[in-house]
Amino acid sequence: MSYSRPIDFKNGRVDLSHGSGGRAMAQLIRELFVRHFDNDYLRAQNDGACFPLPAGAGRMVMATDSHVVSPLFFPGGDIGCLSVHGTVNDVAMTGGQPLYLAAGFILEEGFPLADLQRIVISMAAAAKEAGVPIVTGDTKVVEQGKGDGVFITTTGVGVVAPGIELAPQRIRPGDKLLVSGYLGDHGVAIMSLRENLSFETAIESDTAALHGLVAAMLDAVPGIRSLRDPTRGGLAAVLNEFAEAAGCGMLIHEKAIPVRGAVAAACELLGLDPLYVANEGKLVAVCPAEDAERLLAVMRAHPQGRDAAIIGEAIVDANGFVQMETVFGGRRMVDWLSGEQLPRIC
Amino acid sequence: MSYSRPIDFKNGRVDLSHGSGGRAMAQLIRELFVRHFDNDYLRAQNDGACFPLPAGAGRMVMATDSHVVSPLFFPGGDIGCLSVHGTVNDVAMTGGQPLYLAAGFILEEGFPLADLQRIVISMAAAAKEAGVPIVTGDTKVVEQGKGDGVFITTTGVGVVAPGIELAPQRIRPGDKLLVSGYLGDHGVAIMSLRENLSFETAIESDTAALHGLVAAMLDAVPGIRSLRDPTRGGLAAVLNEFAEAAGCGMLIHEKAIPVRGAVAAACELLGLDPLYVANEGKLVAVCPAEDAERLLAVMRAHPQGRDAAIIGEAIVDANGFVQMETVFGGRRMVDWLSGEQLPRIC
Repeated sequence: MSYSRPIDFKNGRVDLSHGSGGRAMAQLIRELFVRHFDNDYLRAQNDGACFPLPAGAGRMVMATDSHVVSPLFFPGGDIGCLSVHGTVNDVAMTGGQPLYLAAGFILEEGFPLADLQRIVISMAAAAKEAGVPIVTGDTKVVEQGKGDGVFITTTGVGVVAPGIELAPQRIRPGDKLLVSGYLGDHGVAIMSLRENLSFETAIESDTAALHGLVAAMLDAVPGIRSLRDPTRGGLAAVLNEFAEAAGCGMLIHEKAIPVRGAVAAACELLGLDPLYVANEGKLVAVCPAEDAERLLAVMRAHPQGRDAAIIGEAIVDANGFVQMETVFGGRRMVDWLSGEQLPRIC
Repeated sequence: MSYSRPIDFKNGRVDLSHGSGGRAMAQLIRELFVRHFDNDYLRAQNDGACFPLPAGAGRMVMATDSHVVSPLFFPGGDIGCLSVHGTVNDVAMTGGQPLYLAAGFILEEGFPLADLQRIVISMAAAAKEAGVPIVTGDTKVVEQGKGDGVFITTTGVGVVAPGIELAPQRIRPGDKLLVSGYLGDHGVAIMSLRENLSFETAIESDTAALHGLVAAMLDAVPGIRSLRDPTRGGLAAVLNEFAEAAGCGMLIHEKAIPVRGAVAAACELLGLDPLYVANEGKLVAVCPAEDAERLLAVMRAHPQGRDAAIIGEAIVDANGFVQMETVFGGRRMVDWLSGEQLPRIC
C-alpha cells in the first residue's frame, strides 16, 4: 500500500487503517482535518491543543455533545455544521463566550470519503463563521455494521464574564418567558426527510450558532435569569427543567408561540406536537418582567432573533407544573416527553 | 410508562427513550451519571459546566479522545477507566495539569444497563483516583445494529504552568529517549481476549493515568523536550512522529526496550511486533543527554515509572529515519505502521 499519492476523496472509502495510528491515519488528518479546519493549534499535531487565556477571565465553561443525527445531510444543514452549532450553543447558554472546539470522529468502515469531506468542510465553515476554531481532535474507525456512517462528538470551552450568573434556580414567579423565533423547524425537517414527505414550502433546519445573539442579550439585560436551547424534548423539556429547578410553575400562551404554518401542518401529519420538537438554532430566555420588552427589542434587532416573542411567564405553583393556555381559552398540561418521539434528531 | 420507580440496573436495557431528552433520559442521568460521577458541576445540570480558573494559569490545554475499544471489558480494565486515562494522559503529555473532564456517551439500543453501570462506576473510580472530575456530559442512543454497545468520547482541560514548553520540534540530536515501563501490555491483553488465547501468566492492560508521573518528571527536569503516550501505533508511531517533527533520526536499542516475556511470546504467536502495539499507561520522554540519568531516577522512584529505561537517542539523519539496533548487533528500520494491525484497541 502506498501513501505517497494524495487521498482519493472522490471515490475512496473509510477503511480500518484510517483509525490505526499509522501512516493512513496521519495522512487523513493532514489532508482532510488539518487542511479544512486550518489553524496553528491543529497543525502542531500534539496530543492536545494549548491556548492562551484572555486576561481577566474569571471562570471557564466546558460543554460536550455527541451528534448521531440521521440522515447525515438534511435541508438546511448536516451533521457537520450541526455538531459545531450544538456545542457553541451549549457554551453560549451558560452565558459563556465560546473560544475553542475539540472534535472526536467515530467513522464506520466503508463510509464514502466524499461524504466525510463534505461534512468536514461544513464543520470548518460553521466554525469559521462562529469564530470558534476546532483546535484538537481524534479519529476512530469501527467495522462496517458497528456504527452508522459518522458520529461526531464536539466539546467547547469558553469564558464567562464576571457578573454573569445564569441558572434556572434564579427564576421567580412573574418572570417572563421568551423564545428567539419559530419552533420545530429542525425536528420537522429531519422527520419529513425520514418519512419521505414533501411540502409545498420546504422546511429547513434552523441550525445556527447563537452566541452572537446571547452576547447582545446579556449586554442589554445582564439580569437574564436563565437561557436554554430547546433541542431534544423541545420547548416542553426546557420549561419542565426550569419549573423543576425553580420550584414554580410555567404558563405559556399558545397564540403567542411562533410556529410556521408549514411546520404546524407537518406536525399534524406526522403526529407530532411542536412543543416537543427539537430546535437547533433557537433559545428560550427568562428575565424579570420589567426587562422583558427591552430584551425582546434587542432580540428582534438581531438576525437570529428576528421572530422572537414573549410566550408566557413563571407563576406560583408548588407542583411545578407547566401549563398552556390554548387558543380556545382553556388550559392544558405540558408534561415531559414520555418515551421516544424523535430518535436521532441531533 | 411510569418513571416513578427507580431504573432496574440489574435487568434493564438501554432503549431509545434514554436519549430522547424526556423523562427517561433525565432519570438515567440522575440515577446513573450524576450519582456515580458525584460532583456539584454535574448536579447543577446545566448545558455546560462552569468552573473557576486557578490563579496565575497562563495557558490552557484541551484534548479529546473517542473510545471504541472492543471488547468493552478486558483484563486490567474496561472502556470506562480507559476513557478517563486516555484523555488525562493526552492532557498530561502536553505538560498540562488535567483539571476537568467531559464525557459523551453513544449507547446502542438494547445494551444491558448492568454493563453500562459497571462502566460508569469504573469511570467514576478512575476520575476520582486521578483527581479529575467529570463535570459535564451528553448521552445519545442509536438503534440496535447502528452502534456497538457503548462508545465514549472524553475531553479534558488543564492548565500548563509558565515555562513548560513541550514540543517534538525541540528535540536535538544527542537527546536521550526514555520509556516509563514495559511496552505492549494493553494491546496484547485485548488481542489475546479477542483471539481466545490464554497464557500461563495473564497479561493485563496497563491502563493508568500518568499525570502524577509527568508532574514529578517536569519538576525534576523542566527541560524535557517532549512527551507522548504510545497508544495506537505504539512506540514506532511516536518515534516516527518525533523524527518527522524534529528533522532528525532516532536510534533505539532492542536490548534496552522493556517488554515482558509473556508479551513477547504472545506477540510472536499473534504475529505482532511489540514496537507497534498500543499502550495505555506508558509514556515516551525525550530529554537532553545530561538530564537523562536524573530523569530516569525520578521515573523509577514513581509507581508508574518503576520499570523505566533509557532506550536510545536522537541522531543526526536528514532522512528522519527511525532505526533499531537489534540484539544481534545489526540495524533495522522501524517504519510507520502501514495498514491496520490492531483495530479498535482503544
